[in-house]
Amino acid sequence: MDIINIFYYLAIILLFGKSFGLIARKIGLPQVAGMVIAGVALGLLSRFHSDDNFFLRFFIKPNDEEMNVLHVFSQIGVVMILFSSGLETNLSQLKQSGLAASLIALAGVLVPMAFGTLGCLAFMGGFSEYTQDKLLNSIFVGTILSATSVGITAETLKELGKINSKVGQTIISAAIIDDVLGIIALSVVTSIKHGGIGQIGITLLKTAGFFAFAIGLGILTRLYFKWEENKFPHKRRTSIFALALCFFFAFCAERFFGIAAITGAYMAGIVLSGLSDTDFVDKKIEMSGYLLFSPIFFTYIGISADFEGFGLSYLLFSVIFIVLGITGKILGCGLAAKPFGFNVKESATVGCGMIARGEVALAVYAAGSALIAPENGIDPLIATILLIVTSSILCPILLKAFFKEKSV
Amino acid sequence: MDIINIFYYLAIILLFGKSFGLIARKIGLPQVAGMVIAGVALGLLSRFHSDDNFFLRFFIKPNDEEMNVLHVFSQIGVVMILFSSGLETNLSQLKQSGLAASLIALAGVLVPMAFGTLGCLAFMGGFSEYTQDKLLNSIFVGTILSATSVGITAETLKELGKINSKVGQTIISAAIIDDVLGIIALSVVTSIKHGGIGQIGITLLKTAGFFAFAIGLGILTRLYFKWEENKFPHKRRTSIFALALCFFFAFCAERFFGIAAITGAYMAGIVLSGLSDTDFVDKKIEMSGYLLFSPIFFTYIGISADFEGFGLSYLLFSVIFIVLGITGKILGCGLAAKPFGFNVKESATVGCGMIARGEVALAVYAAGSALIAPENGIDPLIATILLIVTSSILCPILLKAFFKEKSV
Repeated sequence: MDIINIFYYLAIILLFGKSFGLIARKIGLPQVAGMVIAGVALGLLSRFHSDDNFFLRFFIKPNDEEMNVLHVFSQIGVVMILFSSGLETNLSQLKQSGLAASLIALAGVLVPMAFGTLGCLAFMGGFSEYTQDKLLNSIFVGTILSATSVGITAETLKELGKINSKVGQTIISAAIIDDVLGIIALSVVTSIKHGGIGQIGITLLKTAGFFAFAIGLGILTRLYFKWEENKFPHKRRTSIFALALCFFFAFCAERFFGIAAITGAYMAGIVLSGLSDTDFVDKKIEMSGYLLFSPIFFTYIGISADFEGFGLSYLLFSVIFIVLGITGKILGCGLAAKPFGFNVKESATVGCGMIARGEVALAVYAAGSALIAPENGIDPLIATILLIVTSSILCPILLKAFFKEKSV
Repeated sequence: MDIINIFYYLAIILLFGKSFGLIARKIGLPQVAGMVIAGVALGLLSRFHSDDNFFLRFFIKPNDEEMNVLHVFSQIGVVMILFSSGLETNLSQLKQSGLAASLIALAGVLVPMAFGTLGCLAFMGGFSEYTQDKLLNSIFVGTILSATSVGITAETLKELGKINSKVGQTIISAAIIDDVLGIIALSVVTSIKHGGIGQIGITLLKTAGFFAFAIGLGILTRLYFKWEENKFPHKRRTSIFALALCFFFAFCAERFFGIAAITGAYMAGIVLSGLSDTDFVDKKIEMSGYLLFSPIFFTYIGISADFEGFGLSYLLFSVIFIVLGITGKILGCGLAAKPFGFNVKESATVGCGMIARGEVALAVYAAGSALIAPENGIDPLIATILLIVTSSILCPILLKAFFKEKSV
């Protein structure tokens, strides 16, 4: 491997990833979608790479070992994104959010997961040709549909002045709980991948074991960080040790419990959330992530996209995937909201507020993509990108339409 | 390669690197020395690694491919350090610093380089057994001695209230110019490595070519960044694009001109220095570097240290190296200061203010270590660490002693 090439790849990835991200935002799409599309473009262009032509040699074409290095960077990127999410979790707010938000979140995770799993199974030849691989593949596809991205909804609600309304608060609370539930769902799914469906008992035990480990070690670590932030407030060392903890949890989750590394990173974030230096640490982590690792993560996903199976059939799959993903959230969350004193329109608004997907969907995709047995043929990456784009456009439109009606 | 292992290595490196760094600072040594020593300790402990023993398996022992990944991280670390140095260069101050500081800096680069080269050649069997490899090795060892680290001196001068005195200002100006000259010296030396001493004409041409390229492309890029900082001040994109430029320059320097990547990064920093968003960008870059890459760089240097040739002979070499490095600066800078209206004591003070070495010496070491032909046997890493430690202790002591005498 030539290290100097890596510098070139990083330069190109940062330049194109960020530029496409900015263009995406300019036309009303989420930046992450732009970055992934930049990666897809770079991946397609790499086919034209030629060392013999002065211009064509500038298309990046990493060899296997170089791709491995970029993969490490992208994994660090997603781990930092989830660590930052964990840090930003407000545990005391989570406790107060009450039964309504909790059940809405639960339904908002389970219904789209079920829809996605069944839809994917049906698409792959129906239940008559059922195999364990296909089931795993389908559950994984369903899991991608579980996590709401609260960013776009929160922005829209702020813009409409409705973020402190009962509907607004319920959506935000549910979206926060939704993250935690999505992470648990992913843990179980990746555990099953390691253990096989037959060993589901051991798998669940391992998952429980990880959370026990994380909470136990977490309490000790938290004590240390509390001592440190009192003795040395706002010191750089706190961020460095926090990042070390994040990597350590990510490592332990996958190595000892067979759970996705991002789950470990997220738990490390929760362990350090709500301390007086948490914001300080989060800012530093987010900055580093933003500067280098996140653009690499999103662009790398695009670069590594496999277009082998792309065609009319895949397009049909994408449409089904998107429809199930969006209706799953609206139905699940809407129906769960109905018994809690919301009328039909309000319930529908809650459901529509939960449809947006973002970086966590891509993180789940990245964590689980090894689950896909190639003979099943469905790599949900492109469908996921399309879902992010569609839901991000649709969510503000629907919220605005519902809130314009007086009754909400 | 198992990506999950990388997370573990990063956690350990951050934890130990930073802890040792803090301990070093506590006992009055530079943090970087502590980090390198942490790396040496981790490297030595890795020999005890065993997968069979519960405790011994926690000693890190990266395989070749994993070491490659850590090497990439460490290279990004050093590139970011030099980029940041470049960004912090105050070009207009540099222009004003006048003849005295320029000549002091020049002598402070050339004399220790010459001392180091001659000393190393003599140590390796004298001039009778001269070979081109030995000469290259020696020039490289001399180059490590060239760069002053201004941090410790500046702190001491501030503490003594002498930073705005004539002597203080001269030291600071000379130390700034010293960085630029050191980078040029390194460029020439790495160029020679690629071309061989026989092609020194082509080599110098290539070096000049790189600076022409960097300045030409630099002027264009600067225009773009000026436009951007006016249109979108304090935006994250500026930092990302700046980092992309840094990587691109680093790539071009080494790939097309055979010059160390860090020279490219430093020039990219100079290109973007003195703009109204420069501080904003520098803060972001420094933060990312500080959080992850610099600790990895310094610790990696220690981990990869080779103790094969360590022994009494090496200790002797280290003593010679340190003595030449310190006397070279005192004599070179002191003698150059004398004709510019400084008395003997003041001249000696200027010389003593320039002896401190730090991260740039390690950066030069890392950039050139491939130059060392193994049969010559002298890997100057440990000597460099000892020089950093010794000079950092000695510099404040000498400065304080000289300034206590009334005449200065």
